[in-house]
Amino acid sequence: MHLPRSLQELIDQFEALPGIGKKTAGRLAFYLLNVPQERLSRFANALLELKTTTKKCPQCFNLTEDDMCSICADTHRDTQVICIVEEVLDLIGIEQTRKYNGLYHILYGRVDPLNGMGPEDILIPQLVARIEKHEKPIREIIIATNPNMEGETTAMYLKKILSELQVKTKQTFTISRLAYGLPMGASIEYADYGTLGKALDNRGAF
Amino acid sequence: MHLPRSLQELIDQFEALPGIGKKTAGRLAFYLLNVPQERLSRFANALLELKTTTKKCPQCFNLTEDDMCSICADTHRDTQVICIVEEVLDLIGIEQTRKYNGLYHILYGRVDPLNGMGPEDILIPQLVARIEKHEKPIREIIIATNPNMEGETTAMYLKKILSELQVKTKQTFTISRLAYGLPMGASIEYADYGTLGKALDNRGAF
Repeated sequence: MHLPRSLQELIDQFEALPGIGKKTAGRLAFYLLNVPQERLSRFANALLELKTTTKKCPQCFNLTEDDMCSICADTHRDTQVICIVEEVLDLIGIEQTRKYNGLYHILYGRVDPLNGMGPEDILIPQLVARIEKHEKPIREIIIATNPNMEGETTAMYLKKILSELQVKTKQTFTISRLAYGLPMGASIEYADYGTLGKALDNRGAF
Repeated sequence: MHLPRSLQELIDQFEALPGIGKKTAGRLAFYLLNVPQERLSRFANALLELKTTTKKCPQCFNLTEDDMCSICADTHRDTQVICIVEEVLDLIGIEQTRKYNGLYHILYGRVDPLNGMGPEDILIPQLVARIEKHEKPIREIIIATNPNMEGETTAMYLKKILSELQVKTKQTFTISRLAYGLPMGASIEYADYGTLGKALDNRGAF
C-alpha cells in the first residue's frame, strides 16, 4: 500500500533502529501523527543537534556538552579511583546504583579479535596515558567490562597492562573487578552452570 | 547523571512514545549517536513534514499526500464493496492479506460511551453521507471493527444504522463482518472461552 512519503520515511527510520520491527515502527509513526507539531519539532531538533552538541570528556570520554563531563568536574568525587567500562550506558547503570563515587574511563568497545578489534582500536592507549600522568596517586582501578567472552578478554588484557603500569609508574593501586554470582531475584534451579559455578567459587562468610 | 541536553531530550522524546521504556529510549538515543548526520537529518525531516504532507482522503479518510488516496484512486478496485475499520493500521493489516479488493471507510475511533465517545465523535456521519450519495449501488459493507467491547458496540450500532439506510436509500447491500474463531497457530488448550465458544458457534462443514 502506498503511504504518504514522510509517513513511510518515518516508519522506515523507526524500523532501522535496533530492536524495532515493522509493526512497532508503524505504530510509533501513526502515534506521532496525532501529537502536536511542537512536539514533533522538539523531537526533530533533538535529532539534529544530537551530534553537534555532544562532545566527549577529554579525561574519561564520557559524553558532555561542556569542556569536561559532569562526573570529572564534580569536586566531591574520589579522583583516586577509576572504573573502566565498555560503554556510556554501563557508566549510567553504575551511577544509578549510587554506590560508586570515583571516576570512570570509557573504552568505547571491547577487545574482540574475531571482529578485528584489538586493544589499540578502543580507548586503552588513552587509559594508559591517563594513568601515567595522573596527578594524585591512584588507589584502585575497577574493571567493569561485561561478563561475556569479549569482556573477559578485555579484562584479562587490562589486568596485564595495568600490572605493568604499576611497576613502570611506581604506583601501588588495587586492581579489582565486579563480583560474579547469582543475580538478585534469580532462582538457583534456573541459573546457568557458569553463573552457579562462580557463585560457589566466590561464596562468602554469612 | 547529567547528560548532554540534546541527548537527554532525545531520550525523553523516545520515552514519551507508547511502549518504549527508559532503558530502550536510552539505547536508541545512544545508537543514534553513532549514525551519520545525514541519517539524523532525514529522520528529523520526516518528523517535521509528517503532519504537513499527510492529508486525509475525502472519500474514505485513509491517509494520502494527494487529493485522493491510492486505494480510492485505483480504478481496478471494486467500488461496490466498503470495509469499515477503526484505524488506518487496520486497513494496512487487511491490505497485507491481499484478499480484499474493495474500498474502505476509516472511522478514526470507536463508539465508547465510557470514554465519552459517541457515534458523532467518529466518522460515522461521513459514512452515512457517503452511502446516501454513492454512485454505483453498494453490494456489501464489511464491518471490521475490533473484536473487543468497544468494537462490538460500534459494530452493533453500525448494523442498526446501515439497516435503516438500506430502507431509506432503497439499496440492498449485504452487511457482513469478519469471522470470529481460533487464530491460526493457536492451541485449543490455551484458547479463552470466548474465542473457543465463537469457534464452536461458527463451525463449518469440513
